[in-house]
Amino acid sequence: MTVRVAVNGYGTIGKRVADAVARQPDLQLVGVAKTRANFEAQGALVRGYPLYVAGDRAPFDAAGLRVAGSVADMVAAADVVIDATPEKVGRANAGMYAAAGVRAIFQGGEKADIAEVSFNALANYAAAKGKRTVRVVSCNTTGLARAAAVLTKAYGVERWDATLVRRAADPPEIDRGPVNGIVPTLKLPSHHGPDLRTIYPDLAIATSAVVVPTTLMHVHVNHVRLVRPPPTTEALVAAFRSTPRFHVFAAWEGIAGTPQVMEYARDVAHGRPDMTANVLWENGVRVDGPNAYFFQAIHQESIVVPESIDAVRAMFELAPDAASSMAITDRTLAGPAPAN
Amino acid sequence: MTVRVAVNGYGTIGKRVADAVARQPDLQLVGVAKTRANFEAQGALVRGYPLYVAGDRAPFDAAGLRVAGSVADMVAAADVVIDATPEKVGRANAGMYAAAGVRAIFQGGEKADIAEVSFNALANYAAAKGKRTVRVVSCNTTGLARAAAVLTKAYGVERWDATLVRRAADPPEIDRGPVNGIVPTLKLPSHHGPDLRTIYPDLAIATSAVVVPTTLMHVHVNHVRLVRPPPTTEALVAAFRSTPRFHVFAAWEGIAGTPQVMEYARDVAHGRPDMTANVLWENGVRVDGPNAYFFQAIHQESIVVPESIDAVRAMFELAPDAASSMAITDRTLAGPAPAN
Amino acid sequence: MTVRVAVNGYGTIGKRVADAVARQPDLQLVGVAKTRANFEAQGALVRGYPLYVAGDRAPFDAAGLRVAGSVADMVAAADVVIDATPEKVGRANAGMYAAAGVRAIFQGGEKADIAEVSFNALANYAAAKGKRTVRVVSCNTTGLARAAAVLTKAYGVERWDATLVRRAADPPEIDRGPVNGIVPTLKLPSHHGPDLRTIYPDLAIATSAVVVPTTLMHVHVNHVRLVRPPPTTEALVAAFRSTPRFHVFAAWEGIAGTPQVMEYARDVAHGRPDMTANVLWENGVRVDGPNAYFFQAIHQESIVVPESIDAVRAMFELAPDAASSMAITDRTLAGPAPAN
Amino acid sequence: MTVRVAVNGYGTIGKRVADAVARQPDLQLVGVAKTRANFEAQGALVRGYPLYVAGDRAPFDAAGLRVAGSVADMVAAADVVIDATPEKVGRANAGMYAAAGVRAIFQGGEKADIAEVSFNALANYAAAKGKRTVRVVSCNTTGLARAAAVLTKAYGVERWDATLVRRAADPPEIDRGPVNGIVPTLKLPSHHGPDLRTIYPDLAIATSAVVVPTTLMHVHVNHVRLVRPPPTTEALVAAFRSTPRFHVFAAWEGIAGTPQVMEYARDVAHGRPDMTANVLWENGVRVDGPNAYFFQAIHQESIVVPESIDAVRAMFELAPDAASSMAITDRTLAGPAPAN
Repeated sequence: MTVRVAVNGYGTIGKRVADAVARQPDLQLVGVAKTRANFEAQGALVRGYPLYVAGDRAPFDAAGLRVAGSVADMVAAADVVIDATPEKVGRANAGMYAAAGVRAIFQGGEKADIAEVSFNALANYAAAKGKRTVRVVSCNTTGLARAAAVLTKAYGVERWDATLVRRAADPPEIDRGPVNGIVPTLKLPSHHGPDLRTIYPDLAIATSAVVVPTTLMHVHVNHVRLVRPPPTTEALVAAFRSTPRFHVFAAWEGIAGTPQVMEYARDVAHGRPDMTANVLWENGVRVDGPNAYFFQAIHQESIVVPESIDAVRAMFELAPDAASSMAITDRTLAGPAPAN
Repeated sequence: MTVRVAVNGYGTIGKRVADAVARQPDLQLVGVAKTRANFEAQGALVRGYPLYVAGDRAPFDAAGLRVAGSVADMVAAADVVIDATPEKVGRANAGMYAAAGVRAIFQGGEKADIAEVSFNALANYAAAKGKRTVRVVSCNTTGLARAAAVLTKAYGVERWDATLVRRAADPPEIDRGPVNGIVPTLKLPSHHGPDLRTIYPDLAIATSAVVVPTTLMHVHVNHVRLVRPPPTTEALVAAFRSTPRFHVFAAWEGIAGTPQVMEYARDVAHGRPDMTANVLWENGVRVDGPNAYFFQAIHQESIVVPESIDAVRAMFELAPDAASSMAITDRTLAGPAPAN
Repeated sequence: MTVRVAVNGYGTIGKRVADAVARQPDLQLVGVAKTRANFEAQGALVRGYPLYVAGDRAPFDAAGLRVAGSVADMVAAADVVIDATPEKVGRANAGMYAAAGVRAIFQGGEKADIAEVSFNALANYAAAKGKRTVRVVSCNTTGLARAAAVLTKAYGVERWDATLVRRAADPPEIDRGPVNGIVPTLKLPSHHGPDLRTIYPDLAIATSAVVVPTTLMHVHVNHVRLVRPPPTTEALVAAFRSTPRFHVFAAWEGIAGTPQVMEYARDVAHGRPDMTANVLWENGVRVDGPNAYFFQAIHQESIVVPESIDAVRAMFELAPDAASSMAITDRTLAGPAPAN
Repeated sequence: MTVRVAVNGYGTIGKRVADAVARQPDLQLVGVAKTRANFEAQGALVRGYPLYVAGDRAPFDAAGLRVAGSVADMVAAADVVIDATPEKVGRANAGMYAAAGVRAIFQGGEKADIAEVSFNALANYAAAKGKRTVRVVSCNTTGLARAAAVLTKAYGVERWDATLVRRAADPPEIDRGPVNGIVPTLKLPSHHGPDLRTIYPDLAIATSAVVVPTTLMHVHVNHVRLVRPPPTTEALVAAFRSTPRFHVFAAWEGIAGTPQVMEYARDVAHGRPDMTANVLWENGVRVDGPNAYFFQAIHQESIVVPESIDAVRAMFELAPDAASSMAITDRTLAGPAPAN
């Protein structure tokens, strides 16, 4: 069985999800939809993706961009739509998908009640099986959920305090700041803890967030008190290393900060230079009695991409369990793009 | 009695300490010493400060800068030297001060054993009374020590987790980065906790730090579990508001981040636009059962300046207690500069 | 005669103009007007300025800010209003000032036809004598006009090519970018040349602009072909040095870039750390045959402030010529603030 | 004939040159050499490149990195070495290459006398034919040389004034600034004009440079007076569009600045998201009588990469002329990576 997937929205997330869908052996990319006739629309055509238009088609024609049809056309040809439109637009689209009888995956920017289940592959793959609507939690919550999967299962979390140092803008954005300054998110604790509890309802986590002038990645600073702590720092490092969706840099690699993390991505990638894994530093993990400390860097542009693929597999029961779905996703994302 | 104070080093800290000394009724500024004949040396003369030279005098003469003498001359004319030289140079200077029979105050960049006591005015003023050598702890530790003074006395601290989001460079620096990225300090917990324990030996605090591309201020993100928590958020806000060296912005003031904090400083300052207080946000404080959360912004250029003045008063017993010393310091720093 | 001056708008420019008016022996500050009850309104009261409200007074009362009256009250009490409101609001206000029978000075963000004359003190002081409405040209045009005053008079300009490297945001702004990138102004040549020709109608200048991620200053890169070039680089440096509103740093001062320029301002200022002069580098000027090259840094927050004061003097004929007005303005701005 | 190419240095330039060599039908990548056993060395192995060590091999062995041999081994197996080592190291290496009897290509950071000819494919391909040593000029000079090729041939340049707005650091660097500020290069005119005259000896160009806090690209601001100007702006745009190594964005594409340029690269690239072409904006070009104005953005990390490939072809006479060499280079760089 090949599931036909449409991607509505071709911005930061949508373009990566489309690339990922195109690489899957069991999925077929119906096309992508976009509202504006700009360089990104042109890029979709360069990639060979059928381009559907949300809204006015005239600017696309004027620009000479080959249009495959309207969003309605795209939805009609799909089994499932991955909605990658801006925050709150997904909710407006939900009715259209339901009316067309197609399933839908929404982003974490939407409220949890938009879907039957909030999803993370490592954390609750099975919960999405057979569902018609799924919400992939946001980039920060995805990063926390993956870490929670490791910590809760092996060690038990008594109390987790996390500070999220967030990027000010995505790389292509020019209209957001600050240029020079730090902006704390004046809601304490931040919404990320409650959002994570849509997946781990009983987790004792408190999160705070600040925005800083960088575009590359978020960094999470984690202080955790564990119920059954590992005996050594090395044991915790090994636990992260052996879990899918974690990339732990060794000390000798000389990765001092997020600029080098993204350089590594550029050095090894086939296709977009993304880091879809939680990024940890071997010497940025520490166990001290019941306390565990670790930094993790989160590539906000791409971390939810593999989860979106796994969500499709779970909904359509294309893979028996999380491990098998993640193995396919991660192998195809790391390898060369298929010929098109 | 007027204590004669010399300031060795006229960089970020030294220039502010000199300004502060010049405003005190019970202190006399002997002069400032500098190694390089540059715009900062010129600035000292514009301020009317006697300029002493550390090292080669020739470039000062060539530039036409009026020199009052050597560092040795300055030290000989002083009762106490405030050493504001770069990290580790203070240790090299300690012998010179001792040999000259003058007392000395060192910066927090030096190790704790450089002085008889590590100092913060709110925390342990009395401990510096009569001492011949005192170390004023670093900007971040000063910020934490002040908050500790409020929390430990009124509520008791069971456990404190702090993330320090640090500035990459001071405003006049052009050689440091990162330009775009986040660099975690790969020592967990960071050295700030142990440094704070030079003042609060039993405090259960764990700190982590990341460096971000800004020049204005640090921001501390604090999660604290209290022994005897205040009944409400308002009670904790009131406790901070009623303590010297804390500035709590009200919600209506519209201070979203550090850029506006420093703008406020420019709007109200007589003299350098500094924020020598810990800066809090009324709506960036939260009490939830035993847990307290708060952000505090720390102006790394100036926060240790009033502490340096209070240290002199404690050493020479010019004021009976911390409250009276701080009152004089804070009043003179907020007002207009004296005519010179 | 003392001219009563009101300042409408208390943002980046308005707050500095108010400070400047308060320092003038022949001007009286009626007060300042503001729309929002925020930290800046609070700062005006700390400075001792009567605070008038533009729009809804309720938030000011709720915040406990002492209000002196409405904008209409302020205008009624003034001889001249300096309008420092955001772009295009000045035009909306023009009718109110005319109806109240008061004179008005507008900012360079308004189109030239808003006033009888576009003004720069060095360039065309006499043209504003006795006028009822004057437009002080924008920060970049002011910087260019001052340089034009030096170049056109002494040497004649055959052709001037200037690139304006502009700041992305002012220091207190957090909503503008880019965080990491360069944004060219896609109008060639840029509007700055034509704007300068409102003062120098025949000047053969072509300007281009790019926006870069900094908050401190603009930098102009100037390539000029002169009709009667000076014999040496030193002669051109001397010409700039001997002209008011130019600050030329010597090589020994070690000013490598705008961060150190603003640090110098902090080191020598009484009051706000501004650079109201065009900032040049002695070793950033070069004469090569008919060609002159020079960088100039422009402090966008303050450069138009002294011009606004001189504009009042010209309109009310308080000083016989530009040189005498500028001498008073520059001396009072450099000195300590008056007691209030 | 297949020419065996070794790449000495695997940093910003070296890694891209290696990728490019690996894609050429008529070149064979012998391997790459690196001094430090870090993430970049690991990245070379992930790409499948034989890794040679410059200096101490022990850290590579300790890290478990598979080493193919020493630099001497690599050089011995090559027909030509492309030296991508840091500035001034190339000169130190020149003797080794000569002694080994292999040809060598050096970077623009070396002085012109390091090689028989300074090279740009569009400008002087034929001059490198049969040479044993060639210097590919620097990123900024390459960008200027390509533009000069268009302008000098079709229109003649009477006078060219260019301002180079330069990036502060490359994306992976964390130790360079400024974080917030502009640093003019206090040499007027800058060295770029004379460097361009190593290729165009008689070109009347004067250049200036400033450094700004961005990592993505340089932007050149060009004001040119032409001898035989094109009749319209459109004619000049068409001339750029029809020349290899120029990418002209249309207005409808919505590329406002360098952040979107690099996003476009990520959207269309197979492999590293680079822009090896000079990037222009259709609405950032203007012809006004004899004057032409245009912005061009230069991707400092990659612009010299295709030139390095063409230099090999010229030296070994693998292609009859510039056009045929560039066609192969540009087609292979734009397409998918070969299987390895």
